[in-house]
Amino acid sequence: MKLSSEEERQISEARTSEVPTKRPTVPALEQLLYFARPVLDHGFVRVVDYMGDDTSVVQAARVSYGRGTRKVSDDTNLIRYLLRHNHTTPFEMAEIKLHVKLPIFVARQWIRHRTASVNEYSARYSLLDKEFYMPAPENLAAQSNTNRQGRDGALDAIEAGRVLTILRRDAENAYSDYLDMLNLDENENVLSNERTGLARELARMNLSLNFYTQWYWKIDLHNFMNFLRLRADPHAQYEIRAYADALLDVFRAWCPISYDAFMEYKLHSTLLSKSAIAVLQKALQGEKVAYEDSALSKREWDELKSKFQF
Amino acid sequence: MKLSSEEERQISEARTSEVPTKRPTVPALEQLLYFARPVLDHGFVRVVDYMGDDTSVVQAARVSYGRGTRKVSDDTNLIRYLLRHNHTTPFEMAEIKLHVKLPIFVARQWIRHRTASVNEYSARYSLLDKEFYMPAPENLAAQSNTNRQGRDGALDAIEAGRVLTILRRDAENAYSDYLDMLNLDENENVLSNERTGLARELARMNLSLNFYTQWYWKIDLHNFMNFLRLRADPHAQYEIRAYADALLDVFRAWCPISYDAFMEYKLHSTLLSKSAIAVLQKALQGEKVAYEDSALSKREWDELKSKFQF
Amino acid sequence: MKLSSEEERQISEARTSEVPTKRPTVPALEQLLYFARPVLDHGFVRVVDYMGDDTSVVQAARVSYGRGTRKVSDDTNLIRYLLRHNHTTPFEMAEIKLHVKLPIFVARQWIRHRTASVNEYSARYSLLDKEFYMPAPENLAAQSNTNRQGRDGALDAIEAGRVLTILRRDAENAYSDYLDMLNLDENENVLSNERTGLARELARMNLSLNFYTQWYWKIDLHNFMNFLRLRADPHAQYEIRAYADALLDVFRAWCPISYDAFMEYKLHSTLLSKSAIAVLQKALQGEKVAYEDSALSKREWDELKSKFQF
Amino acid sequence: MKLSSEEERQISEARTSEVPTKRPTVPALEQLLYFARPVLDHGFVRVVDYMGDDTSVVQAARVSYGRGTRKVSDDTNLIRYLLRHNHTTPFEMAEIKLHVKLPIFVARQWIRHRTASVNEYSARYSLLDKEFYMPAPENLAAQSNTNRQGRDGALDAIEAGRVLTILRRDAENAYSDYLDMLNLDENENVLSNERTGLARELARMNLSLNFYTQWYWKIDLHNFMNFLRLRADPHAQYEIRAYADALLDVFRAWCPISYDAFMEYKLHSTLLSKSAIAVLQKALQGEKVAYEDSALSKREWDELKSKFQF
Repeated sequence: MKLSSEEERQISEARTSEVPTKRPTVPALEQLLYFARPVLDHGFVRVVDYMGDDTSVVQAARVSYGRGTRKVSDDTNLIRYLLRHNHTTPFEMAEIKLHVKLPIFVARQWIRHRTASVNEYSARYSLLDKEFYMPAPENLAAQSNTNRQGRDGALDAIEAGRVLTILRRDAENAYSDYLDMLNLDENENVLSNERTGLARELARMNLSLNFYTQWYWKIDLHNFMNFLRLRADPHAQYEIRAYADALLDVFRAWCPISYDAFMEYKLHSTLLSKSAIAVLQKALQGEKVAYEDSALSKREWDELKSKFQF
Repeated sequence: MKLSSEEERQISEARTSEVPTKRPTVPALEQLLYFARPVLDHGFVRVVDYMGDDTSVVQAARVSYGRGTRKVSDDTNLIRYLLRHNHTTPFEMAEIKLHVKLPIFVARQWIRHRTASVNEYSARYSLLDKEFYMPAPENLAAQSNTNRQGRDGALDAIEAGRVLTILRRDAENAYSDYLDMLNLDENENVLSNERTGLARELARMNLSLNFYTQWYWKIDLHNFMNFLRLRADPHAQYEIRAYADALLDVFRAWCPISYDAFMEYKLHSTLLSKSAIAVLQKALQGEKVAYEDSALSKREWDELKSKFQF
Repeated sequence: MKLSSEEERQISEARTSEVPTKRPTVPALEQLLYFARPVLDHGFVRVVDYMGDDTSVVQAARVSYGRGTRKVSDDTNLIRYLLRHNHTTPFEMAEIKLHVKLPIFVARQWIRHRTASVNEYSARYSLLDKEFYMPAPENLAAQSNTNRQGRDGALDAIEAGRVLTILRRDAENAYSDYLDMLNLDENENVLSNERTGLARELARMNLSLNFYTQWYWKIDLHNFMNFLRLRADPHAQYEIRAYADALLDVFRAWCPISYDAFMEYKLHSTLLSKSAIAVLQKALQGEKVAYEDSALSKREWDELKSKFQF
Repeated sequence: MKLSSEEERQISEARTSEVPTKRPTVPALEQLLYFARPVLDHGFVRVVDYMGDDTSVVQAARVSYGRGTRKVSDDTNLIRYLLRHNHTTPFEMAEIKLHVKLPIFVARQWIRHRTASVNEYSARYSLLDKEFYMPAPENLAAQSNTNRQGRDGALDAIEAGRVLTILRRDAENAYSDYLDMLNLDENENVLSNERTGLARELARMNLSLNFYTQWYWKIDLHNFMNFLRLRADPHAQYEIRAYADALLDVFRAWCPISYDAFMEYKLHSTLLSKSAIAVLQKALQGEKVAYEDSALSKREWDELKSKFQF
């Protein structure tokens, strides 16, 4: 990730100017504000604004006149209770806004979360930078043979070298042809006065899905947790998980009580189906349990057995 | 509107404690923060938090690293352009949260705006106060004879007196029976140890729709403007319009540039249908225009003629 | 529930006219179409339209050209897999529309589900009928002493009689004053030519929350299941649960495979928190488990112990 | 657009099997059902299901027991009234589902409409076909010099040839390297047993934005009209407009009354700002109007003058 000196000046300016406010304010998150935290090779997440904190959740749940806080232990218990029982609306009362730079194929997964606000950099209007994602060799995973949607271990060194060579060559080639069709060089100077440039909105179609885009993304805490539950999960694609991991750190700085409750009741919880409950109940009574009697699929049975070792 | 001394203490505490922040901050809105502005006889709106301001709209539209501002005139032009052309997503980037006290029949209209977050005071959990809406005599409108959904002028004094007597008597009666069924007095003391109180979630059904409820309501600027466009309109019911008018003042303090653009392009604009455009075009060429040739309904024709006096 | 003869004629007409369609069609749901199934004393739910079925979920998950079906067993496994892993978007591809008559206090809970489309009967525009909810004596529950939001057993006969008398008297009184303020009798005839009627939009505020309203409600299968998971739950208020129970029957007729999966993975499932998993893992290894070491709250511990009997 | 014989068999099967239904049914739309209408060079839209019709809008607005219809002229007037006054909820009561094949850069614009349900073909799970968008020469527009987001006329023949050569060569190269990294040929056969294929979820990043994807897309009539108002507008990019135009034909077959009202009040209407109203009012009184007194921007003034010729 490389910011221009003008961008760095703007960020630094924003990071140093403080004004007084009567609003709920989180010192730990103020520390992170505007700072661009690197993700993948050219991406970042940076918090650009936020509203509310853990006490905002409490305040809304109690519809109170003040900050809602009685004692920290009361607030903690209330937040845990709310999250455990899916009382989701109080968590909608805190909001966060981020500036994110990410590969287009990651952006295409990300945008599927519809309950957020997004303003994306427009390649109809502006030139895209020459920045494309190149996986680190250890993340060049092989296609899984058992799970059509999954990855296996990393490719061996020779295959990895081959793939990286292809990816780089094709991306560089795509970008140079992008500029050529626009009749521009990288500094947006016209290449030849005798040619006419293709419209930006058309030329961009030559770029590949590993090129970086960027957007402003605003979401409330409830939907932020939904995003994290799906995208910080081990089944999520590594590249979006890298962003989710960075967002988990933001979450912890912003709303530490909600964060702990989220880890306990959402990210590291498990859902037991009606039939799985019956299996565990019998096993705990010391009764014999068997796949054949369980009404579980083979896969569910294996996962349950591996998790609970009955 | 009567706040308890404890409520007033909490509000006053919130209004006096300031901390530094790096976030976009609006001094004019900070002035209003937590203050309960009266609406109708017992209601209020009070801003309890906000995120962003006019420059946040600009920043998102430009996906910029800094505050997005170049010159105020640029920002103004951009905001007007965005609103005029229905580029709505940048306006989703600012957010406001209010605590509102309002009659239930107003709440039932209000909640139809689904793109907002709401936490309502729970009458399953807590006692409702003895507060019900009594219209001022000048707002006791007669049913319109020409518009089934509309009002005419105010009732005469005798009719008004009769209606107010009925409304008050029935509401007081409903409330006293509500307490009686709960086996409670107004201070939540048990009335009789020999009786069992009805569940709160059932007893509340005896209250009428003019009783007050309250909620936390959080909405982004784009949807806030949608709400205001519908509810600050002269066709909206007076009682919800009273709230919309109070919110317009909040809007002006918060985002003055967007507010001006909203008044120009939304609240005081008019939509010309394809056929209405054709009528005005002809009239401006000095051609004769007639209802019969216009493809407009009689009502549309009359409204157009009365507005443009052709 | 009493329908007018005109309403019954309209329903009967709709129920008997069939036309050919190429769309996915569910014979078991066609049987229920337009029929008003009673709920509570004057309410009903009736399916008025639907789109898609179990195979629509499969078809969308596979993005296929045909009906998506290979074998019923494949479809069943896919639907169970999707629901178990919270792949929710394929369930958005089926849709249902209902006409519902329900007490206003139930409508106020119901409307909190925002991801649905609603058109409600307008009491600004039309007269409300004299129909209000009177609980059956066995549903006149006492306020719980241990759970502020809950019910205990039913009131005794004397208390029940007292409550029912109050509820009926107050509702009848409210309605007769509603008509009086409107200067109308129940057949919408003007009572006195010398008086002016209050606007309908104002007079309605005198009615209590147990009066019935009605609406068209349209929702996709994913959000329908979310509604049912919350409202068919034993913690939901009895009155809305009565509607959820009626909707479960609709669900089973419409999408039997999804219905079974829903019962298994949603309605009768349980969420184990990270700490609860650890407790069960230890218990299954025969280790001693104790509340003190569990990191669970007392309430969580008690619930877990009572469910799994370790 | 080339469908496999198996796909054609599935479509033809769906198009010929009819069953009886009691639901609202639109013969003109049944004619189009499942048929793949070509858009651009390899894309299509095909209606795969629908719910409701013009009378469903009427029925919901009236909350009626039958089909809602009195006379066609009444229905037409009501629908026009609803659309004109932005009473949007009745239009949410009809729903349509389409299967769409479209270039990824078009899909990225399309997905910004969040109030719809989408299931996209997964390139994590399956191989993408070798199909990429090549604009027709007359659609190879030059970048506009006056409007950063716009197009000018078409490139000349020599430039067009150059651009088409680049686009085709780069896309073919990207696809062949995509297969090579996957260690697969186009029929999904393994290329070499001595190599390991890269995970599909990674290999896809090498494809460019003109490759085709496909999805199921379901939306209600209100949001469908919002989509069309923005995407059938002359300012929309040509490639998404081609889809919007195809959808307009679907709309007309499905709900002809709403379609006509949409053309009149939405697609071909114009919004007059408060200041523009004042200009036209003065002009119609024969008063002199001048840009300097108008409070309009230069651009607004020019557009108003060019439209109304005052």
